[in-house]
Amino acid sequence: MKIAKPYLLFLGDAPDDLAAKTAFGVQAWCPQDCVGQLRLPGCIPRLELPERDLRGAEAAGAKTLLVGVVNRGGVISESWRAALLEALECGMDIASGLHTRLRSVPGLTEKAERLGRKLHDIRHHEGTLAIGTGRPRSGRRLLTVGTDCSVGKMYTALAIHRALEARGIPADFKATGQTGIFIAGEGISIDAVVSDFISGATEKLCPAQPDDHWAIIEGQGSLFHPSYAGVSLGLLHGAQPDALVLCHEPTRTHMRGLPEQPLPSLERCLSANVEAARVVKAEARFVGIALNTRALEAPAARKLLEDTAAEAGLPCVDPIRDGVEPIVTEMLKAARNCGSVARSAERPARQA
Amino acid sequence: MKIAKPYLLFLGDAPDDLAAKTAFGVQAWCPQDCVGQLRLPGCIPRLELPERDLRGAEAAGAKTLLVGVVNRGGVISESWRAALLEALECGMDIASGLHTRLRSVPGLTEKAERLGRKLHDIRHHEGTLAIGTGRPRSGRRLLTVGTDCSVGKMYTALAIHRALEARGIPADFKATGQTGIFIAGEGISIDAVVSDFISGATEKLCPAQPDDHWAIIEGQGSLFHPSYAGVSLGLLHGAQPDALVLCHEPTRTHMRGLPEQPLPSLERCLSANVEAARVVKAEARFVGIALNTRALEAPAARKLLEDTAAEAGLPCVDPIRDGVEPIVTEMLKAARNCGSVARSAERPARQA
Repeated sequence: MKIAKPYLLFLGDAPDDLAAKTAFGVQAWCPQDCVGQLRLPGCIPRLELPERDLRGAEAAGAKTLLVGVVNRGGVISESWRAALLEALECGMDIASGLHTRLRSVPGLTEKAERLGRKLHDIRHHEGTLAIGTGRPRSGRRLLTVGTDCSVGKMYTALAIHRALEARGIPADFKATGQTGIFIAGEGISIDAVVSDFISGATEKLCPAQPDDHWAIIEGQGSLFHPSYAGVSLGLLHGAQPDALVLCHEPTRTHMRGLPEQPLPSLERCLSANVEAARVVKAEARFVGIALNTRALEAPAARKLLEDTAAEAGLPCVDPIRDGVEPIVTEMLKAARNCGSVARSAERPARQA
Repeated sequence: MKIAKPYLLFLGDAPDDLAAKTAFGVQAWCPQDCVGQLRLPGCIPRLELPERDLRGAEAAGAKTLLVGVVNRGGVISESWRAALLEALECGMDIASGLHTRLRSVPGLTEKAERLGRKLHDIRHHEGTLAIGTGRPRSGRRLLTVGTDCSVGKMYTALAIHRALEARGIPADFKATGQTGIFIAGEGISIDAVVSDFISGATEKLCPAQPDDHWAIIEGQGSLFHPSYAGVSLGLLHGAQPDALVLCHEPTRTHMRGLPEQPLPSLERCLSANVEAARVVKAEARFVGIALNTRALEAPAARKLLEDTAAEAGLPCVDPIRDGVEPIVTEMLKAARNCGSVARSAERPARQA
């Protein structure tokens, strides 16, 4: 179910920018979909959007109040509750990525039902899921994968999607985490589904499409992150990708949140991902590497990008500094070379 | 929470042996824990246990009625409901592996609470789970992995556990699926946890132990099964295994349930599993291969076992025909060679 835009971004009483990371991401990627921000007393972060109260947001056309903030303990405080109830009165639906369900806030469900508003708890998938099948399906798919968490997988996927749109190529961005879902207005929070359904949920998220259509899928975690690798592998199989892009943050010294866990080499990460992808898609290949070089000076970043490209034999860019054109070009070239999916699906069963 | 033994195995109105697969598994591995079977009118399968009604089972000392059957549609029919309610009256707890929760059966929760009985919905983990960390922990662990689903991972793990007990080596069997949980009386149904918690749930299932203790962990699915590979990888990381055993059914022509999906070669399966295990345990290695050769004549089975052992350089047995002694010997030898876990945990961070 699609979340209605435009949004009023609700920051609550967020203590710092990190707590409002989701709201910053939504502002960065779809400012045209945001009528303003609502900050409660004590809120520290501030977006580059008009400050509006609920009546003002209603007048500006807001269709959904978006809880773009994480709260300490994941609870919805009393001060939030009054604003949420009033948002319903002001004609808005509410969407939240918190673990605590909106439906558990006293009085909210009743009022939403009475007024005909929707409550979107995007970390809890509504509707049925099926077990994944791995069966070949038409359409092209690209998945961003990572050496680690928080290395630019969503950013890179969004940038590739935007570049395809600019070229007039039919494409969708497929969101698998909360910020991405708010930006797209829909998606499946893949780490919140029951583990039996990881690949099945991904197959549902990006179903068969015409041969010339691209689904650009936001990756999650890393095959080498001991906390989340199961999610990453199920997502990789469900995505059945034609094309992969490896995302990496070159100054990371250990896996995020795990000081004892070393990062994999790029080479090991490339080969593990492509091996796993070929379980469901024999033609799967990498079409680029995206480095987040924010922590490096420009000359050092340039040299690293060039060295990495030469070593891997793949386009290597920093999507923020350089954009993703070389990756898009490689991806389209690879797709032309391997022919239509319909044809490849007619071949006899793949040899393992 | 431990499920109280002994059990009364409830077959309901199961239409065939396959529907009662769980009950047959429990009977095979812990007949001493089963006081009898309860079959309703229309039930086709029959165990090699005394038939008892609920009063008879109570008299025989049954502590838990175990729903060892899957029902069409996963619903609990009216004819079952009466038996379940009466079981509570007869002093029994109830344990079920169905997707439908016992708590959703009208009247059951209230009666259980009033009488002080427990309802175990083993496909729904109760209690909190944490994200996995991959941090080194003491104790030895062996995990059975597979080329596919239903190739003998539970059987092999149980056989290894039994062989260790016979040698007087401290060991636990760790169950990750419903039949295993009923046999052990506890465990975590790993494919039913939220995908963020696959490895964390496994770490909780087999926590740190003294250096000479072995946890023998039942594997699930396969890294090469597009429906379940995420579960298999999260389980592999959470298990942090010293030793792996590969289970395989040599006459399988495609992945279970997916006619278009070829099986991986043993070689590819060995290398993918050991690579993934080494993300969390640098010393991880295979100590054997278990083939289910039921579909082969004895001479053909013998030759295949010998050829496979020679090719892989590992002990290769059919646990049902031969037992698992060669694997246990290899596993203990490998553990002696790589020293104590406490010492290995002191080394500097592993290189990726």
